[in-house]
Amino acid sequence: MNCSVARSLDIVGEWWTLLIVRNIMFGQRRFEAIQADLGIARNILSDRLNTLVAHEVVERVKYQEHPERYEYHLTEKGRDLYPVVAALMAWGDKWEAPDGPPLVMRHTCGEQVAARMVCAACGEPIEFGAVRSKAGPGFRPAVVQPGK
Amino acid sequence: MNCSVARSLDIVGEWWTLLIVRNIMFGQRRFEAIQADLGIARNILSDRLNTLVAHEVVERVKYQEHPERYEYHLTEKGRDLYPVVAALMAWGDKWEAPDGPPLVMRHTCGEQVAARMVCAACGEPIEFGAVRSKAGPGFRPAVVQPGK
Repeated sequence: MNCSVARSLDIVGEWWTLLIVRNIMFGQRRFEAIQADLGIARNILSDRLNTLVAHEVVERVKYQEHPERYEYHLTEKGRDLYPVVAALMAWGDKWEAPDGPPLVMRHTCGEQVAARMVCAACGEPIEFGAVRSKAGPGFRPAVVQPGK
Repeated sequence: MNCSVARSLDIVGEWWTLLIVRNIMFGQRRFEAIQADLGIARNILSDRLNTLVAHEVVERVKYQEHPERYEYHLTEKGRDLYPVVAALMAWGDKWEAPDGPPLVMRHTCGEQVAARMVCAACGEPIEFGAVRSKAGPGFRPAVVQPGK
């Protein structure tokens, strides 16, 4: 599909996938730990991790020789998913946390994190309605089927 | 699950759901138009829209009386998903758009949008590793099963 949202969701759009990425972000790098924390079936976790490795979001790193054992680290591409996870967390904190946020994030500046999306050019918040889209260099018209 | 990322994904974690939200954000509000654009089965689209309405992300608005016809508008909760969609788009543009971005977004300031997530307190970018988490007011310890 001719859209970067769709291409992103092709890779991380499956429910478990972003939770696995979140767990690795929060420092949980080993199969057994992720499996126990998420309560996910082993074959599904294995499948999702393989997809993430194939798309170079995650890499397997050997941490023990005898026997060989691996853990999962985020690549640069994987670390770049941080704003997606942070935006989902902010939305859930606002709309689906009646008892308050389950986790509080503190920025290195010392303040509690209130993530905000801004325009890198002017610094103003990017909100619904403040953005207009047009076709970019990677735009390809949708394929029209014969007879349609 | 005791996490705002998980609760958000419970609502919008299905592949099609965020694409439907994206289409409505971009002004495509009617069932037939969304269906034609996404090429999604009618029963699946209907099911996903019902879920979005039930969670008050989207509302049905009557636009014609005879016969009655409805279109789908984002609620405030739905408009608040803009940073999630923008973050997914930015990631796809960077990592999955070898021919360049399919869509270019222009901010109301006139510049091309390069969305950036910043700390609302200090204005510095929020990136992987710049944030520490701890239990918040809504934290509930995981239920420990007897015998474990």
